[in-house]
Order: sequence, then structure tokens, then C-alpha cells
Amino acid sequence: MAKVPELAERAGLDPGPALVVTDEHVADLHLGELMEAFGARSWKPRPLVVAPGEASKSMDTYSLVMDWALGVGITRQTPVFALGGGVVGDLAGFAAATLLRGLPLVQIPTTVVAQVDSALGGKTGINHGVGKNLIGAFYPPRLVVSDWGLLRTLFRSEVRAGCAEIIKHGLVADRPLATRLQRDLGSLMGLRDPIAPELLRDAAAVKATIVSGDEREAGRRALLNFGHTFGHAIEKVAGYGRILHGEAVALGMRAALHLSASLKAGSPLAPEADLPAPFAEADALVRDLRIRTTLDGLETPELMVAMQSDKKRAAAGLRFIVLDDIGAGRVADGVPVEMVEAAWAYARRVGAGG
Amino acid sequence: MAKVPELAERAGLDPGPALVVTDEHVADLHLGELMEAFGARSWKPRPLVVAPGEASKSMDTYSLVMDWALGVGITRQTPVFALGGGVVGDLAGFAAATLLRGLPLVQIPTTVVAQVDSALGGKTGINHGVGKNLIGAFYPPRLVVSDWGLLRTLFRSEVRAGCAEIIKHGLVADRPLATRLQRDLGSLMGLRDPIAPELLRDAAAVKATIVSGDEREAGRRALLNFGHTFGHAIEKVAGYGRILHGEAVALGMRAALHLSASLKAGSPLAPEADLPAPFAEADALVRDLRIRTTLDGLETPELMVAMQSDKKRAAAGLRFIVLDDIGAGRVADGVPVEMVEAAWAYARRVGAGG
Repeated sequence: MAKVPELAERAGLDPGPALVVTDEHVADLHLGELMEAFGARSWKPRPLVVAPGEASKSMDTYSLVMDWALGVGITRQTPVFALGGGVVGDLAGFAAATLLRGLPLVQIPTTVVAQVDSALGGKTGINHGVGKNLIGAFYPPRLVVSDWGLLRTLFRSEVRAGCAEIIKHGLVADRPLATRLQRDLGSLMGLRDPIAPELLRDAAAVKATIVSGDEREAGRRALLNFGHTFGHAIEKVAGYGRILHGEAVALGMRAALHLSASLKAGSPLAPEADLPAPFAEADALVRDLRIRTTLDGLETPELMVAMQSDKKRAAAGLRFIVLDDIGAGRVADGVPVEMVEAAWAYARRVGAGG
Repeated sequence: MAKVPELAERAGLDPGPALVVTDEHVADLHLGELMEAFGARSWKPRPLVVAPGEASKSMDTYSLVMDWALGVGITRQTPVFALGGGVVGDLAGFAAATLLRGLPLVQIPTTVVAQVDSALGGKTGINHGVGKNLIGAFYPPRLVVSDWGLLRTLFRSEVRAGCAEIIKHGLVADRPLATRLQRDLGSLMGLRDPIAPELLRDAAAVKATIVSGDEREAGRRALLNFGHTFGHAIEKVAGYGRILHGEAVALGMRAALHLSASLKAGSPLAPEADLPAPFAEADALVRDLRIRTTLDGLETPELMVAMQSDKKRAAAGLRFIVLDDIGAGRVADGVPVEMVEAAWAYARRVGAGG
């Protein structure tokens, strides 16, 4: 964290006024250190502390950030530092994207998901009553400073949820990473040196490789949505912020693995059956996260409807990311509804410990 | 207008659901025709009619457009058609830029300013209490359909204000265009065929040439702000929407021409003196618009302050676009305050008919 100002300067930003957006939790833990670091190098940071949690990814908070930023006085050279997890990164990133049509953005991710996924690649945005991330912009950060030491202040459940995204990266695009996770998931979840920082860096590299050359999500980047069509529906029906994003994605990936197996078989697999290879192996990896998300209280018809308002839905019917093999994700269009329903039934069974 | 759907299809958009944003005035004049054209080719357009005028470039209206668009149901393939002048284009453009992180945008400009300037080049955005266009995005349209016949439904004063932007294009970047305007400004303002459509097309080409290769306003694009630092200050102090943008820009250009002459002379020109060549010639062209904007009731200190909150202000002091010659604009940094004050005094004198 002490190096943030220096790294910003090396990335071409001049010491001077800067906006720092963070949330109450992160501010308690890390803002003081960041402000000190800035002070030592003659920066003039102005912090804004928003409420923690998904509710801050709203039009109201966005509007408040804009009022604040324009009120303190900025030029096109004023950088925005987003200090926090996915919520802060997405909110502050969207503000940076749209203040004076774009200020330099520096992401300082403080969660696992943010460090390996959301802070990289330029997706910014806020939620809307109709669905998640429906308002936003593609806006790449000028710089991302990831300090894995910051993760030690997280709750274990947050680390675990973040590891779901790391598994996802391995499953869709990096078989060696998936293999290492089979051995080292415990060390990663325990944040043990040197295995954890290595895996974090490699998972971030998967994301960076995929998004470079596909910034606007026309092709390969869509793979990173593996488990997310199911996961977003779970988050939406459960109520945003009721479960962690990574927790929803973990169960969503298990549904997506069932769907992948059904597509390979050519007909819906029974929800009670075990998955065939290689999907069983992938499923075991997700299961090893021991995330206890369930679909209890969430009705399948509601989940189906929620899935259809997901913005990644193409005009021509249901689109999913599925696996052909571990490390080999692909886009599947026009997936039969019966297979999706069977996948939900599978997720319902395994989520309940079945 | 009848050709819009066909042109959209040729630009790669599929007939289907579409959003159409317009304002009450334009809706009365042109929306019926556009909807008919869509209907004839199996499009399913959904219109949203906002209040006319600058007040619609607000966070409130933006938020309303987002609610509406997300409420009717869209995918990333749903295009947004912006039917109207600069306000509608900027508002609908910003909505298109940020709905699902970007929907295809089609501009159908219905004013002179929009046809030769604001609909081209991808600047979108809304206003904020602190200043104009402070929230927005660079987001190029997929297609711009400019039908000069639509201009016949404008008020004469609106055509005249729009011609200020055409003169601006000639002054900063196209000496032959400026020369033709000296001869044909009357025909242009009278919308006479074939001179008016030719000049409109050439003025649009100046803009298109400048912005291609400088989408984010790092270099040459800044020339298009000639007269705008003064003009925005006039609009801001007078109260947005009280005078037409082009009217403010016209007087702003006269101030900027005075400033250009001061910079060339190396000291502030007296506000009472006539401008030296070639600035006098340029000034006469703007004067021939016979726009009766004055600075009556607008105090110079207030205008100076308003100018400093303009987002184009660089960190290092006052930046202006000035002319070295007709057709040769450039950026001038660190302009002495005395020269700016003298330019205001000149604008005050000529605005009052001096």
C-alpha cells in the first residue's frame, strides 16, 4: 500500500489532487495507511467513504459520487483511486469513466475477487432494480495495484468466495492452474505464502490474457462468465447482497458443469446422477470450497425468469458458458430449457448437501 | 427520414426492438414519420419523449431514461436512435453508452449544430450544477443520418445559431470553407438548395476529419472548442437554456478572436480598437450572423470564475483555442489573465452593438 503513490507516478500520473473512493469497512482497515503514503509524496488525496455492500452500486450513490467529485473541483488529470472490493471498484470505476468523460483510474483491490477478476479488464458499473451491472461502461484502469497482504484482513468466508473465481479461471481457460488448485486449494484459502500469492498472480494473469484483445466482450472474454448466468440469477432472486457474489458463482458453476455434461450427452442428465468425467473432477474442485449456498427458498421458475433478464442474454435465446473439458470453456447458444432446468435441479440437490 | 431503418440495416443493425429518444418539439414534427418508416420494415421501435431544452440533460432525466430502457427490456443488440438536437443526442448518447455498458447508437440530428457538430465524434453527456457536460462518455455512434430537409422546421434563430458552428469549423481548420461562407452565408442561413446542403456536408466533414484519430480529445480535436471556453461561461452565468448554445459560441468566438489578436501582438489589445488583419475578417464573418447576444447583466468576474470550472481547463492555468490565421487554430496555454479580461471587454462592447 505504501508503494501506491510511487507506482501511480511511474504510470504517468502527477502528484497532486486525487480522489479516493472507498467504503466504511475498508476505510477503517486501510485508508489511513494510503493517506499517509500519499502525504509522504506531496499528493493531495480527497477521500469519499461510501456505505459497504452491494447497495452502494446504485444510481443514488453514483449520483452522490458525481456531486462530491465535481464539488471538490477536478480536471481531466485528476485520478480516481478505487480502494476496496468489487463494489467500490465498479462504482468508482464508473464514476471515473464518466467524470469529464473520463479521469485516470487506479484500482487498489482489497478482496480476492477484485484482485483476480473485477479490478482487471475495465468493466465498471452499477446495478438497477431490473438486474445487476445493467448500467456501466467499459473503461480500463490506468493501473491496478494488488497487494495480497491486504487479504489477511478479510473474513475466511470472503476469501473462500473469492477462490471460486480463481477456480473458474482454471476451469474455463487454464488446465494447469486447475490441476494446481486440486492440490493447493487449502493453501490458497489459508493465504499461505508463497503458494497463495503465486496462485493469485496466475489467476489474475488468466483474466488479463483473456481480456486483452477482447475488451468489449465480443468473444473469448465471455468465458469469464462461466457460472455467472446461474449465479446472477441466484443473487437476484435471493436479493442482492444477501449472499456473496463468489458464493453464488460457486453454486452457479456446479449448475453450469451439470449443463455442460447434459450438452455433451445430448440430453438432460438426471439431477440425481453423478456427473461423468471430466465434469465430476471439476465439480469436486468447486465442492472443496465448502461454500454452503443453497437454493432453499428460491423457486426454479423465478430463477429462470431472472436468468432471462441477464444482459448477456443474446437475442436468440439462452446463452451459457459451458466446458468441453477442464481448461476448455466455450459459448453455447440456444441451450434447451429442459437442460437448464435439470441443471437448477442439480444445484438444488448439491446445494442442500445432496 | 424514411430511409433511416434501411440505413440502419446497412450499418449492420437487425430489424427488431429499438429505443427511440426524442423531445416533445421534435416528436410533434418528425416522430410519426420515423415510426412509420420503422413499421414498414418490421422494426419494433419504442419511443421515449423527453421535455425539450437543456434541462433534460440532467441526472434526473438520465436516470429516467435508464429506468425506461431497462424496463421495456433490452439486449446488447438493441439500438438507441437519438432523434433531435444536441440535447437529445447527448442525453440518448450517454444512455446508449452506459446501458449494458454500451448499445449501438444511431444519431438522427435535427438541428444545424447537431448535424455539423454534436452528433458527430462521439461526445455524449449530461450537465451538472457545477457546469455543462461534466458527466459523460466518449462513445461514437454506429451511424449518423443527417437529413438537411429536417432543418426547414427550425426557427430562423436556431439555424443562425447553428451557422456559428459552421463558421467555427472554417475558422479553425478550413480556410476554403471560411472563404465560401463569406460569400454564401446568406444562402446557408436561408437553407437554399444546393448551397446550404453542400456547406452543411463540408462542415460536417471538417468535424469528422478532425475527430477521426483524436477521439479522446488529446490533440487536434481541441480546436473545435474555439469560442467555447468563453461561450460556456456565457451560457453558465446567463443560466443554461436561456440562450442558444450557438449564440453563446458566436459571441465567444468574437472574444476568442480578440484574444488571438492580443496574443499575436504580445499584449492586451484595447477593447475599443478594431481588430487587426486577419482577425478583423474572421470577426466580420461572425458578425454577419447578426446574432444579438449581449453580456448585459453578466459580470466579468463571474464569467472569469465560470470559465475556470470548464472541464477543458488544464491543470496548468488558462487554456484557450486561438487562431494564428483563418483556417489555422491552435491551443494556447498559460494565457495572461489581462488578455482574457480584455477579450471579455471586447465581447461586451460588440455584443452591445459597439
